[in-house]
Amino acid sequence: MTGSLAVVGLGPGDASMLTPEASLVLAEADSIYGYGPYVDRVPVRAGQKRLASDNRAERDRAAAALEAAVGGERVVVVSGGDPGVFAMAAAVCEMIEQGPEAWRRLDVRVVPGITAMLALAARCGAPLGHDFCAISLSDNLKPWAVIERRLTAAAEAGFVMALYNPVSKARPWQLGAAFDLLRRLLPVATPVVFGRAVGRGGESVVVVRLEAADAAQADMATCVIVGSAETRVVERPGLAPLVYTPRRLGR
Amino acid sequence: MTGSLAVVGLGPGDASMLTPEASLVLAEADSIYGYGPYVDRVPVRAGQKRLASDNRAERDRAAAALEAAVGGERVVVVSGGDPGVFAMAAAVCEMIEQGPEAWRRLDVRVVPGITAMLALAARCGAPLGHDFCAISLSDNLKPWAVIERRLTAAAEAGFVMALYNPVSKARPWQLGAAFDLLRRLLPVATPVVFGRAVGRGGESVVVVRLEAADAAQADMATCVIVGSAETRVVERPGLAPLVYTPRRLGR
Repeated sequence: MTGSLAVVGLGPGDASMLTPEASLVLAEADSIYGYGPYVDRVPVRAGQKRLASDNRAERDRAAAALEAAVGGERVVVVSGGDPGVFAMAAAVCEMIEQGPEAWRRLDVRVVPGITAMLALAARCGAPLGHDFCAISLSDNLKPWAVIERRLTAAAEAGFVMALYNPVSKARPWQLGAAFDLLRRLLPVATPVVFGRAVGRGGESVVVVRLEAADAAQADMATCVIVGSAETRVVERPGLAPLVYTPRRLGR
Repeated sequence: MTGSLAVVGLGPGDASMLTPEASLVLAEADSIYGYGPYVDRVPVRAGQKRLASDNRAERDRAAAALEAAVGGERVVVVSGGDPGVFAMAAAVCEMIEQGPEAWRRLDVRVVPGITAMLALAARCGAPLGHDFCAISLSDNLKPWAVIERRLTAAAEAGFVMALYNPVSKARPWQLGAAFDLLRRLLPVATPVVFGRAVGRGGESVVVVRLEAADAAQADMATCVIVGSAETRVVERPGLAPLVYTPRRLGR
């Protein structure tokens, strides 16, 4: 029997944003591996194994999933959002590179999903309508100096920025430091959007000016979009403002 | 009667990557506006109007759609991929800002989709597994000097890059110029992935080294991902290579 491994993006959380491809792969799996809260989003099916693990156990989880696939199971590893964006697909590829030959012979597939910045952008207009970048603010896996350098490069070159992993209990100061850095490079009125739990229960979207952006507005479930100098806020009577970055620049 | 406007992302093309949310909004629409090839992807429904227009008529299309919504229709504007990434959501927001007050009172919604870089990244592994950016190579809407500056900033700061709109009949030289610029800044072995028509008929994914990247490999249906100095290619016996960017840097 030949097993397989699929790394599946669950999207923001609500079933309405889970692709039919992801639903099908999940339904056909023998076993589901992932961080507990993501495994909990997958409907329970009789006969299907569910192996939840800690957020930081990514290498161990990938290795266990690869071993199960080599053993003949149809294995799914789940990620929130898109598995290729600061998530499990890179961890699985890394283990395949470093692990036994049998892992490099496996049928491996990545199933894309709606990543947090796309869900948040859709909720508030089109802030990612022009050139943009995605930066993880976690300095668990890279030095803070690299993050500062990237924030600076992105601001100076006019990219809108989506900030992933802005804050956690173990990383309380990084988002505030990022805002301080960006305030020295961007106009005070630059729009900043905080999206918490977008696309699932308890959603909130807040738009502020960079001068008033406060890291305390974010938690682990938040994605933050920082506009460029071109990004605009359109006020609307009785409705939430629209935030967008024009497609046209400098003409 | 109160109309509404939804800007809907069709994803890469295959129905398996169209979200249930997008399917539902399309099914309930009175009229579908969009670039011809995108409108053609929407299943025909009795009583639903279909208004296809040229790729470059984005402002006129947005205005016509907004007018129809003010007139009471449930209007959908379709985009390939995600409507917020170099697509119609920003055009609609722009017209709302500049147009009559009635447009700012409309129920407007953006429905996200799987954008080209996520679909391509999933097909080849996890090249966007670390910090990355998305740059449109079209100099129809911004000066080429700005594009050069952003490519330079992204390469120097270590971002992986997804290049949208790499080439068209009217823009034949821009991708070649981008590769020439990047060859001066990145290692010759940096992986470059060409994804053509990913997620629909005629799909092809090709991985080359930056030194061998040839703009003639791309057309209007291509998304190009250029790795960073950290991006790796994992060769596999009898299978396509995996391309990924490790989550960990510099430790």
